Amino acid sequence: MSATPSDTSTNPVLVEVTRGGAVESRHRGAIAVVDAAGAPLATVGDVTAPVFPRSAVKALQALPLLESGAAEALDLSDAELALACASHNGEAIHVNAARVMLMKAGLDEDALECGSQWPRRMQDVARLHRADAHPGPLHNNCSGKHAGFLGLARTLGVPTRGYVEPDHPVQREVRIALEEMTGAALDHAPCGIDGCSIPTYAVPLDRLARAFACFGTGEGLAPLRAEAADRLYHACTAHPEMVAGTERFCTEVMRAFAGRVFVKTGAEGVFVASIPERGLGVALKCDDGATRAAETMMAETLARLLALSDDEASALAHWRRPQLSNWVGRSVGEIRPVDAAFAGLEG
Amino acid sequence: MSATPSDTSTNPVLVEVTRGGAVESRHRGAIAVVDAAGAPLATVGDVTAPVFPRSAVKALQALPLLESGAAEALDLSDAELALACASHNGEAIHVNAARVMLMKAGLDEDALECGSQWPRRMQDVARLHRADAHPGPLHNNCSGKHAGFLGLARTLGVPTRGYVEPDHPVQREVRIALEEMTGAALDHAPCGIDGCSIPTYAVPLDRLARAFACFGTGEGLAPLRAEAADRLYHACTAHPEMVAGTERFCTEVMRAFAGRVFVKTGAEGVFVASIPERGLGVALKCDDGATRAAETMMAETLARLLALSDDEASALAHWRRPQLSNWVGRSVGEIRPVDAAFAGLEG
Repeated sequence: MSATPSDTSTNPVLVEVTRGGAVESRHRGAIAVVDAAGAPLATVGDVTAPVFPRSAVKALQALPLLESGAAEALDLSDAELALACASHNGEAIHVNAARVMLMKAGLDEDALECGSQWPRRMQDVARLHRADAHPGPLHNNCSGKHAGFLGLARTLGVPTRGYVEPDHPVQREVRIALEEMTGAALDHAPCGIDGCSIPTYAVPLDRLARAFACFGTGEGLAPLRAEAADRLYHACTAHPEMVAGTERFCTEVMRAFAGRVFVKTGAEGVFVASIPERGLGVALKCDDGATRAAETMMAETLARLLALSDDEASALAHWRRPQLSNWVGRSVGEIRPVDAAFAGLEG
Repeated sequence: MSATPSDTSTNPVLVEVTRGGAVESRHRGAIAVVDAAGAPLATVGDVTAPVFPRSAVKALQALPLLESGAAEALDLSDAELALACASHNGEAIHVNAARVMLMKAGLDEDALECGSQWPRRMQDVARLHRADAHPGPLHNNCSGKHAGFLGLARTLGVPTRGYVEPDHPVQREVRIALEEMTGAALDHAPCGIDGCSIPTYAVPLDRLARAFACFGTGEGLAPLRAEAADRLYHACTAHPEMVAGTERFCTEVMRAFAGRVFVKTGAEGVFVASIPERGLGVALKCDDGATRAAETMMAETLARLLALSDDEASALAHWRRPQLSNWVGRSVGEIRPVDAAFAGLEG
């Protein structure tokens, strides 16, 4: 049971999955809660190790779309800006909005390089099956982000082909925005290819948290960037259904909090949040990559950091402690946060 | 980073998920390799904590079906016996076999109490959608096991209704078999409700491993049980497609090993194996419940415990080190075992 070379520190168990009252599985992770100046309010586990933020940084990747003037030139609506920050379900509202974003840029789905993906909801899958159709790139959860990238490319007057490659002007701009927001020197950061083919850079949780404190408050940002961040914050919180979709954490939580918080999930158990009224940003990672645990981690974190109205508490409740039922609907267990691990987040 | 009350010991990282060569996520767990006398050949992590084995013990739960004479009375084929031990994909071969098993007992799917479940493969889901149909209990991955329970009930001459309840004669028989095979006093074991509604008892990995050493060799078993275990072992290894299905670990591995090993997965990251030629049983659990990690753990364990033919090594390779690709098929990373953690399993 000694540490293996791959395991330089051991993060605490933050989430338990129970069956019949006994713990069946356990999830470890780390959480950073940081202000816009970079001072930590609270941390759990190791918040300095590099983490691939995946889709959690889509709103930062969308900053160039606004700062370049592209969003205005293309007359993108708030709902479309929200889609540019989204990991959506591939519901009709998402597919249609992505199609229109591309049209505004004089393009269609053939320009997308994200790849195709089945929609998340069974009813949307069924509709495709009954039409004997396959999903296309518009259904890809990143299609709004990519439509934004293409709009930026067109506005910059550069070729759209290869817009996902690290050396393309669009990805250069995106990288600069990430580097500036996180304060991390990305030359030295682990770099990988994301699911949708754009680059992903691993950044410590504490730096990600700070980036989202700045994103939510505008503190420490140049006026152009502060305005862009503010526009995106409000677009996402005013159109939460675009950012994810039906029954998704980000949508339900942002809908319930009505502008008080911005939250965004990333693959492999990542979540970020901006809490402007407290000047804070949150970034967390479930070590093993489990979304079920990361959702409970973020819900519990929000509950500890904010005084909740009854509606907000009610909306968070089933994410803090999801009840598990079996194939006939019998209650079999739950997913729950480890109380002692979150106690340090209060105050 | 101190241990939380829920975390009495820390299992080592056994599996890493990489992106761009960097570790993105980590999975911890424990592995027990034990002989039929209960002596450990090797252990990794804590093998004494109770673990819900879930579907991994289906072959033990099927012992009463044979020992009672029900399998013979109902003239169940080897393929049907394999289905009685299965967590199947809900492909046509599985659904049809379960239907026939029930017919042999004078029953139909209305008798099943496991609940309905969508098939695993998209093409089987599509077929239902195009027929405007919903899945039924025959599609449930446990339908073969439940058809076996119902056949046992009919042979015992007891009512079938409520056959999933702990006090029903069928579940009493199943529990006795589990208790005897594992040597664990189930009165004191954590007890939960499984996905298909039958009881599930948490048992230490070392006891599960011993149970499967006995299952594979017949050592330490009364003649009636040894014969039942032998029948089930051969049914599963001769009809691996029934035990899981297309592209599933258990099916591909048992097919490749052609009788040398029996393997069975369980929900929440559990796997067991019987390796008769070495007189061994294996039981493992991924702490966080991830099947992707448990598959790599079992594949690596088998590779360390057995001298492999080229075909066997080839079949195991993509389970030991699954290559990950993104939505357009670009290679982005891999899942890999932590070499140092498995080194102790050799010899």
